[in-house]
Amino acid sequence: MDPERRFINQLMAGQSVDQVFLVQDKDLRTTKSGGLYVTCTLVDRTGRISGRMWQASESIFNSIPTDGFLHVKGRTEDYKGNLQLIIEGCRPLPADKVDLADFMPVTELDVEQMWSELLEILRAVKDKWIRLLIKKFVEDRELVAAFKRSPAAMAMHHPFIGGLLEHTLNVARSAKALLPLYPKVNADLVLGGVFLHDAGKVAELSAGTSITYTDRGQLVGHITIAAIWVQEKAAAVAAEADAPFPQRTLDLLQHIILSHHGVYEYGSPKLPAIPEAYFIHYLDNLDAKMWMTANQIAGDPNAEASFTAYNRQLETRLYKHSGELGDEQG
Amino acid sequence: MDPERRFINQLMAGQSVDQVFLVQDKDLRTTKSGGLYVTCTLVDRTGRISGRMWQASESIFNSIPTDGFLHVKGRTEDYKGNLQLIIEGCRPLPADKVDLADFMPVTELDVEQMWSELLEILRAVKDKWIRLLIKKFVEDRELVAAFKRSPAAMAMHHPFIGGLLEHTLNVARSAKALLPLYPKVNADLVLGGVFLHDAGKVAELSAGTSITYTDRGQLVGHITIAAIWVQEKAAAVAAEADAPFPQRTLDLLQHIILSHHGVYEYGSPKLPAIPEAYFIHYLDNLDAKMWMTANQIAGDPNAEASFTAYNRQLETRLYKHSGELGDEQG
Amino acid sequence: MDPERRFINQLMAGQSVDQVFLVQDKDLRTTKSGGLYVTCTLVDRTGRISGRMWQASESIFNSIPTDGFLHVKGRTEDYKGNLQLIIEGCRPLPADKVDLADFMPVTELDVEQMWSELLEILRAVKDKWIRLLIKKFVEDRELVAAFKRSPAAMAMHHPFIGGLLEHTLNVARSAKALLPLYPKVNADLVLGGVFLHDAGKVAELSAGTSITYTDRGQLVGHITIAAIWVQEKAAAVAAEADAPFPQRTLDLLQHIILSHHGVYEYGSPKLPAIPEAYFIHYLDNLDAKMWMTANQIAGDPNAEASFTAYNRQLETRLYKHSGELGDEQG
Amino acid sequence: MDPERRFINQLMAGQSVDQVFLVQDKDLRTTKSGGLYVTCTLVDRTGRISGRMWQASESIFNSIPTDGFLHVKGRTEDYKGNLQLIIEGCRPLPADKVDLADFMPVTELDVEQMWSELLEILRAVKDKWIRLLIKKFVEDRELVAAFKRSPAAMAMHHPFIGGLLEHTLNVARSAKALLPLYPKVNADLVLGGVFLHDAGKVAELSAGTSITYTDRGQLVGHITIAAIWVQEKAAAVAAEADAPFPQRTLDLLQHIILSHHGVYEYGSPKLPAIPEAYFIHYLDNLDAKMWMTANQIAGDPNAEASFTAYNRQLETRLYKHSGELGDEQG
Amino acid sequence: MDPERRFINQLMAGQSVDQVFLVQDKDLRTTKSGGLYVTCTLVDRTGRISGRMWQASESIFNSIPTDGFLHVKGRTEDYKGNLQLIIEGCRPLPADKVDLADFMPVTELDVEQMWSELLEILRAVKDKWIRLLIKKFVEDRELVAAFKRSPAAMAMHHPFIGGLLEHTLNVARSAKALLPLYPKVNADLVLGGVFLHDAGKVAELSAGTSITYTDRGQLVGHITIAAIWVQEKAAAVAAEADAPFPQRTLDLLQHIILSHHGVYEYGSPKLPAIPEAYFIHYLDNLDAKMWMTANQIAGDPNAEASFTAYNRQLETRLYKHSGELGDEQG
Amino acid sequence: MDPERRFINQLMAGQSVDQVFLVQDKDLRTTKSGGLYVTCTLVDRTGRISGRMWQASESIFNSIPTDGFLHVKGRTEDYKGNLQLIIEGCRPLPADKVDLADFMPVTELDVEQMWSELLEILRAVKDKWIRLLIKKFVEDRELVAAFKRSPAAMAMHHPFIGGLLEHTLNVARSAKALLPLYPKVNADLVLGGVFLHDAGKVAELSAGTSITYTDRGQLVGHITIAAIWVQEKAAAVAAEADAPFPQRTLDLLQHIILSHHGVYEYGSPKLPAIPEAYFIHYLDNLDAKMWMTANQIAGDPNAEASFTAYNRQLETRLYKHSGELGDEQG
Repeated sequence: MDPERRFINQLMAGQSVDQVFLVQDKDLRTTKSGGLYVTCTLVDRTGRISGRMWQASESIFNSIPTDGFLHVKGRTEDYKGNLQLIIEGCRPLPADKVDLADFMPVTELDVEQMWSELLEILRAVKDKWIRLLIKKFVEDRELVAAFKRSPAAMAMHHPFIGGLLEHTLNVARSAKALLPLYPKVNADLVLGGVFLHDAGKVAELSAGTSITYTDRGQLVGHITIAAIWVQEKAAAVAAEADAPFPQRTLDLLQHIILSHHGVYEYGSPKLPAIPEAYFIHYLDNLDAKMWMTANQIAGDPNAEASFTAYNRQLETRLYKHSGELGDEQG
Repeated sequence: MDPERRFINQLMAGQSVDQVFLVQDKDLRTTKSGGLYVTCTLVDRTGRISGRMWQASESIFNSIPTDGFLHVKGRTEDYKGNLQLIIEGCRPLPADKVDLADFMPVTELDVEQMWSELLEILRAVKDKWIRLLIKKFVEDRELVAAFKRSPAAMAMHHPFIGGLLEHTLNVARSAKALLPLYPKVNADLVLGGVFLHDAGKVAELSAGTSITYTDRGQLVGHITIAAIWVQEKAAAVAAEADAPFPQRTLDLLQHIILSHHGVYEYGSPKLPAIPEAYFIHYLDNLDAKMWMTANQIAGDPNAEASFTAYNRQLETRLYKHSGELGDEQG
Repeated sequence: MDPERRFINQLMAGQSVDQVFLVQDKDLRTTKSGGLYVTCTLVDRTGRISGRMWQASESIFNSIPTDGFLHVKGRTEDYKGNLQLIIEGCRPLPADKVDLADFMPVTELDVEQMWSELLEILRAVKDKWIRLLIKKFVEDRELVAAFKRSPAAMAMHHPFIGGLLEHTLNVARSAKALLPLYPKVNADLVLGGVFLHDAGKVAELSAGTSITYTDRGQLVGHITIAAIWVQEKAAAVAAEADAPFPQRTLDLLQHIILSHHGVYEYGSPKLPAIPEAYFIHYLDNLDAKMWMTANQIAGDPNAEASFTAYNRQLETRLYKHSGELGDEQG
Repeated sequence: MDPERRFINQLMAGQSVDQVFLVQDKDLRTTKSGGLYVTCTLVDRTGRISGRMWQASESIFNSIPTDGFLHVKGRTEDYKGNLQLIIEGCRPLPADKVDLADFMPVTELDVEQMWSELLEILRAVKDKWIRLLIKKFVEDRELVAAFKRSPAAMAMHHPFIGGLLEHTLNVARSAKALLPLYPKVNADLVLGGVFLHDAGKVAELSAGTSITYTDRGQLVGHITIAAIWVQEKAAAVAAEADAPFPQRTLDLLQHIILSHHGVYEYGSPKLPAIPEAYFIHYLDNLDAKMWMTANQIAGDPNAEASFTAYNRQLETRLYKHSGELGDEQG
Repeated sequence: MDPERRFINQLMAGQSVDQVFLVQDKDLRTTKSGGLYVTCTLVDRTGRISGRMWQASESIFNSIPTDGFLHVKGRTEDYKGNLQLIIEGCRPLPADKVDLADFMPVTELDVEQMWSELLEILRAVKDKWIRLLIKKFVEDRELVAAFKRSPAAMAMHHPFIGGLLEHTLNVARSAKALLPLYPKVNADLVLGGVFLHDAGKVAELSAGTSITYTDRGQLVGHITIAAIWVQEKAAAVAAEADAPFPQRTLDLLQHIILSHHGVYEYGSPKLPAIPEAYFIHYLDNLDAKMWMTANQIAGDPNAEASFTAYNRQLETRLYKHSGELGDEQG
Repeated sequence: MDPERRFINQLMAGQSVDQVFLVQDKDLRTTKSGGLYVTCTLVDRTGRISGRMWQASESIFNSIPTDGFLHVKGRTEDYKGNLQLIIEGCRPLPADKVDLADFMPVTELDVEQMWSELLEILRAVKDKWIRLLIKKFVEDRELVAAFKRSPAAMAMHHPFIGGLLEHTLNVARSAKALLPLYPKVNADLVLGGVFLHDAGKVAELSAGTSITYTDRGQLVGHITIAAIWVQEKAAAVAAEADAPFPQRTLDLLQHIILSHHGVYEYGSPKLPAIPEAYFIHYLDNLDAKMWMTANQIAGDPNAEASFTAYNRQLETRLYKHSGELGDEQG
């Protein structure tokens, strides 16, 4: 992140601005006196502000990118109670000249440290073939690089750069903590399954200047994508080992991926049929809900209300003060 | 089929029998006088009959296979209104000595002729890559042999040897007939999709002496299996062509497979998102329902009732005389 | 249609206008200087434009109809990026002086030709009573005239003048094409059922200056209306033939109508209980979905996105490029 | 009812029997010694008993009707703890020689008295057209005779001869009692709607020797049948009055019938859209539930249990002692 | 209510105003010339109006309460077709200086008279313990005072001061009217259950300056709250009587409360399992629907349409003229 | 348990028996020769066996209890492949003379040890009021004794003596293991909630000679029962502390109990609205599913099948070999 940057949620009226924004939409309009001016929406990862450039021309308008970056010089002012940015000069900027983390929500944790911890947890796998399969994934540099960057969802939970890794690590930690309590559960299948369950998100979601579904993500989906990857990597493992990858292991890992949403309605083509699939389903769900509740409560705009706005996914409003027992009288 | 064979649904009391049956279960029991006798259930593809062997021994009992074939000599008799078969002698028979078609329900149509007609319809595909992909499937001898034998379902529709081919051909014929009426629909995607939509049944179902799910069928399912096969065959096509298989074509064919059940509840992880996916969904469903209604009506045991027994899948009873308008007075 | 007419979607800033519009709403407002002006929304079948008349009076305002026609003289101009129409003079016009097809969406096909083709297909009916019943409907001039004009739905599919006929013909064509593939299906019931299945829409929907439900449409619905009509026409046939209309034929035709939505949730009081009812249900649904997908894709405003906006009925977004295999690289 | 008759639920071992039974099924069997004997199930409205005739012949067997009446001479005996009837002689009897009320469950109330009370309640209708419509129904002798005999359902509630009238009267009484509390509700629509809401049951159900659905009942259903009858009777009223039957009144009465099940899932093609439709929906439902709960509790076989067996329609077991507060200690 | 007050729905442009309003939100804005002005929304129980105070200051702005009362002097004027109130002077007012009935919707009926009638109906209870339990509730002054004030719901039905009492009385009247028709139903349980079924609303809802959920209402809900109150009051009764409160009576009263929503989906943790629970469920529902339909029809803004806007709870639009048979031609 | 006892699942033909059984049902029958004999079903916690006593009398028959204990002398024999017990002498036995653990399924773990561990985990609660509340429960000797004995369900999971404690401890252990990973979650609420979430089972279920619902269990249910207990115990705590129990703490603990089933359909009147409620919901569900899957797999009768029979709760069949990776070839 650019340490000098003044983020949008920190701007106040009457400041000079000389930095980059992401342009989300733009319009060329005519003033009553017949002149031209540009309006646009400028965003960074903390919010959005309305931009306005007076005495514009069509060529200036055309030079402003949509869904691209713009270096802006200007000043902020209050307009009917809202802040707007009067643009005095601007020039487009290629994406590789900007620090994307200024414009996209991003994990607050250290990605490499999370990755190391995840690998450390996976080291507990004893089954030879699952070890080899995980290794094949870990050695796929391109995939690992994407895995570290990928969000875990468009909006539901962990929708930010690094979210997939953060979520996967959380579930892995939970699995590590609970496996000793359920000794009959096959720990190797669980750990392998945790690692792979959402891996297909890497190809389902694209995180350029915003998080969007890829065409393949919408048409095929992360569940099937991950099942296919497991098939391909297992074939590669078998080729190297010069022995067939055990069918049962392959079937069960794919089954865990295919059933981890728990019910058909959420796109799982199979219902959990082994204890390990339930195990992952609940820990996955738990981590998602912990993020969703915390995020909804933290982001609720109405400070006075004791409940958040209605949450469609959770089908309820959330109470904001469960962490503050005994505070109510004070 | 053995032309000499007297099928179970043709047997009457008082006949001699000297032929093979499939044994479904067996029991060794004690008579009141302390002797031993064997009871068993003998089946062929037309029904089941109760067998009884008096003055048996444990070694005879042990020689009788369960879920295997038994050559039986004996005679039929009426017992409390039901036919039973008194076994006078018997010997087990390996499966390769019997004509499986006598014991398993099997398509009444000519398999090779159906296969030729299906290939003929697929020849209309113009897109180079879909042609190559179909070719890859058709050249996979093992898969084709299994495709020709596979049922289309455990019980729902076309649950017999050759049922998958019969159903696939029916849908292909319907598609061929309707595509001219919907010229905007991409005929190549439809024809490729029809061919592939249920192909995974080949690995989902096993048709030995009865139709059962394979482990992989239950854990992974024919929808995901087919999506994986398309991925693998497309990779093989690309390798041969020394060019990448077009991503969009791959995505759309997999999407058609993944969405062809139409709703999540029936195990589709994706809802149809292109006209071609709807097209196949409805023609597939139509053919299944035509089989289910015809089969339920034909097999209804109560000749006098004008409605069949309740059908769980269809959530209703079926009226049996829609084909006989004007017959009611006569 | 008026060949001279410049449709709203063709207008540009700076043009003179001298033609009829449909007025959808109007408002009389005061300028800051205390004068009066009129704002209104003018529509034709291609879109809507904001109208504004300066220096208006209450009597002018009162002369402008709501949901009626207005001949307008004026000129177009750009206001904050949107086109508006400055009205210089106007006079109301009765509906019979305008070509309604300019104001309502209307089938692009030849109505009489469609009607002939439909009758031609119905000529294949062999059952005497179904023939007579169809004849009774066809001889009801008022009903036929309304049938040719009626839309097939408010919004779901074929929501335009002539839509019911276009949809009915499509289903009839599909039935004609598929019936040879399912020889056990009673073709007479299917053809009669196709003709009648949506006939009640004629009384359910009203297409004056826009498509709306009639009171009877909302309270009773097209399914019951059609079942009642069949009862009445069958009584008339029987009276002429001096013989009772066969009960079974009557029951089955009404059953097809009552069950053609396929599930209770969509207002079918009966589930399909004969093969012919399923047959019509799927072909009806197929034609509706082909229209809905094509229409959603064609009308999607965002040219750059590869998916349309979310479609509530289909519960998904649609991919727009299934017709363009291989185009993606170029 | 035959006052001499000893009903099946009163029979004990060792009694002579000389009376009529309804035969439900029969079988001709061979004894171990090669002789023939007949087994059959004999029923009356209080239960069923197993019949056995030794030393039978095929001609005797053929003379016994199925689903018909048989005059039986014989004696009862205990067989393995169950009563059976040893038939010594028998002869078939036509249905018109027996009192059906001995064999079918029948209302315990006076049918004519109920009918009078119902008409008395309907006399409160003030609207001329609804009065005339009710009159048309009441003057249809055949329909009224059937209405008085018809059950209200196969099994759900009031499944006995006269049940439709009993239920209709109950709902009418409730309506009469509650209408004063809701003065804005249109009492004429309510009373007309109550009378007609289930009238179609007359043609949906057949109550010969047992209650069954008619073909028309299963294919078309009582809801649509009643809507059609209203249409026909209204046309007759209009013809006599030489004036059109008011469309709104017709629409609303049909709407009440079409929506009285309250939700699509129970076969209502329309949801209630007027207060009167809700009014009837709840009173109808209340009366059905009062019968179902009373009947389930009264008929529960396990005297010691405080809850009945699980009731599928009600999705629960019923507590049997809500009428006995304070009795628990005693 | 203040008899002098001119309610918002009676105001016209050009009037002087000197009275109290409830302030719902407020904003301090800058004019183009740099001055400050206040905008706010003023409401009373008949509607809302936009307020505007020119030449304001921050201290004036701060003196205006949010969700509190403001005495306003000023005048109305028309602004772009909408009325607005130009505030010339204002001062805040504590809630105890205003007549809340001017600002909150309130029952139009006499609260004390309703309460007397309810008690009169409850006097019919014969069971000693239910009588004592009701007495305990009635003697709880604080609870009774709140009961008389409480709305019956946020928005669904009877959402106004006194609504709970009005609704409870309606259901009690209905029960009184119908109990004679169902003599097997335990009238004491029904009357006690009617009184208690919604009593928990008193603590679920708060009706200060608007109707809102309390924290306890959202977290625990009126159903559980009422069940707890019954437990507490029964314990108090038992203590006074020096005898245990009969367990069965306690269980059944709580059961009625817990099951009165009828289905799980509406928050009933138990399904009705006694006739009395169904009895209350239907009468409760009937009264709610009578209010909802009447209110929706009365409040529909579009006078010309024969149907109201879509009602989400009822999942349909309502027909507005079921009370006017025969009026349609006139 | 009686160490001498030979459990039913260990009996073989030809053994002498002299021990106690639980009688489930009994019947007095007549032999063909006119003598009397008794049949009955004898059970212990390992299974059931058919008992038969020849040359019985009515007085002997009457002396045999139903759902009571019987000391039996006799011998086992094989009858048509099933074991039966020929009773030579018998006498009834009061329940307090038998070790119930021989007849009811019972936890295999040490109850006191589990209780200590649970208390140890609860010791981590820091909030004063939750500590006091737990203490109130723990000091209620009768309740604690019952808590230690109670099953966790009729059949779903942990349906045996001590099952509630075993399940509660499992969830407490999981909570203890996962709480460090989610530091924002209020650990005190979670621990208190885990302890209380199923406590109402103590009064919902009765475990005499078999597990059954109590009347209060069926009418009110464990969820509401627990909420009431919390209210009562909190009142007692407040009385002792001479200070009001904090409302928020009370509301939230009750909310956790009321919402812990997660969805309305399973009898939760509230959906989770705080992170702690989700936390408990998932860990509760996880433990239940781990028991259900392990139990279903362990108890599957068909050793050869790789899948269990269909499980209604889980809506699938379970794969039995997920614990045996790599074993398939051997």
